[in-house]
Amino acid sequence: MSDNSTMGLLMMSNPVFECYAFYSSILILKMIMMSFLTVLQRFRKKIFISPEDTSISKRGGEVKYDDPDIERVRRAHLNDLENIPIFLITGLLLVACKPPEMIANNMFRIYTFVRIMHTIVYVFTLPQPTRAILFIAGVIINIIMIIYIIFSMHNF
Amino acid sequence: MSDNSTMGLLMMSNPVFECYAFYSSILILKMIMMSFLTVLQRFRKKIFISPEDTSISKRGGEVKYDDPDIERVRRAHLNDLENIPIFLITGLLLVACKPPEMIANNMFRIYTFVRIMHTIVYVFTLPQPTRAILFIAGVIINIIMIIYIIFSMHNF
Amino acid sequence: MSDNSTMGLLMMSNPVFECYAFYSSILILKMIMMSFLTVLQRFRKKIFISPEDTSISKRGGEVKYDDPDIERVRRAHLNDLENIPIFLITGLLLVACKPPEMIANNMFRIYTFVRIMHTIVYVFTLPQPTRAILFIAGVIINIIMIIYIIFSMHNF
Repeated sequence: MSDNSTMGLLMMSNPVFECYAFYSSILILKMIMMSFLTVLQRFRKKIFISPEDTSISKRGGEVKYDDPDIERVRRAHLNDLENIPIFLITGLLLVACKPPEMIANNMFRIYTFVRIMHTIVYVFTLPQPTRAILFIAGVIINIIMIIYIIFSMHNF
Repeated sequence: MSDNSTMGLLMMSNPVFECYAFYSSILILKMIMMSFLTVLQRFRKKIFISPEDTSISKRGGEVKYDDPDIERVRRAHLNDLENIPIFLITGLLLVACKPPEMIANNMFRIYTFVRIMHTIVYVFTLPQPTRAILFIAGVIINIIMIIYIIFSMHNF
Repeated sequence: MSDNSTMGLLMMSNPVFECYAFYSSILILKMIMMSFLTVLQRFRKKIFISPEDTSISKRGGEVKYDDPDIERVRRAHLNDLENIPIFLITGLLLVACKPPEMIANNMFRIYTFVRIMHTIVYVFTLPQPTRAILFIAGVIINIIMIIYIIFSMHNF
């Protein structure tokens, strides 16, 4: 990255992009794991979401939408859906703004840590306000990144 | 951007990308606000989604999934989730297609306006078909952008 | 793309990016179609999600949240939301890693095919484990892409 003025920033040779790509990968894997966690809970409890699914489990099963353990995992997953995809876009825009490497990398790191903790606290039902604090921490990081993006623009 | 043939388009020096980044930021902030609006409604009504959350509110609270005001905000949020992240990806692809600046910028502007209005109309329960028209307007913009992307390809 | 070392990969002149943009467009159109499929089912059954919506249908309508046909389409849509946006980000990161063209393009193709089939199987209630296999196939492709991204990094 000797000459940023003529080169793109969205490439692996840019260390900030590489860091972004790494933590994005971790967050995406984390979200994929939520699907498997739901499936795991469904098989453990033999409670499924569609009638045809009960045939998969050898020991039968029923369709229910109010099992507290399954709904808890699904809520944690929905919270990820509400937060992580927009963070991933925000991160990409931030990289394009050529932010200070240290600050950007730490934002990606802390956000990833906070979201993983959020899921753990949610799924294992740790007492509030732990989950609320983790949720707000993630949101604040995302908002700071957006403010940085908007203020680094020339034409707005 | 004197010589586009050897430079990337996904950079802030490209005014179309800068415009995309600006309206993406606004849309992401708007989605983040939906989370806070839900939390606000929950505290106002003292109705929470997980049993452990009732301890946050000093005046107690209960777990319910059918409060009409809270579910209304959540439906508006879900509608955002179904539309905005895929629009953000579509916008990025459009920028990479080097579209006419005026047209692309206005698409980003109008889409952002339409989605903000959609939420306002949804949350304040304005009479239909206002919300339906706003929803369809957003979808049509997204479809036009995708058609532009596909037709600007050389190998397909 | 004669000289990749000084040029960006996220541009239409890169055939892998063009292929990514094409299949991303198809997947986004597919997701948009889920919204219309839900609306279609709602009008056919005259069952709506918000009280003010019943005024759109000339023959009246009611608010219900447990119609099996509508909830089936919504579950298929939610499954898309849980999988496709993160795949689209993964694909973008993969393109930035300069993967072998043939492998990357086939990943995009197979994933798109698998997700379209997933929706068809879900909506028409084909017997399990068809849907489970299609779901897992999509997830495995996404995981392989992430592993490729992480292993092509230099600093991690």
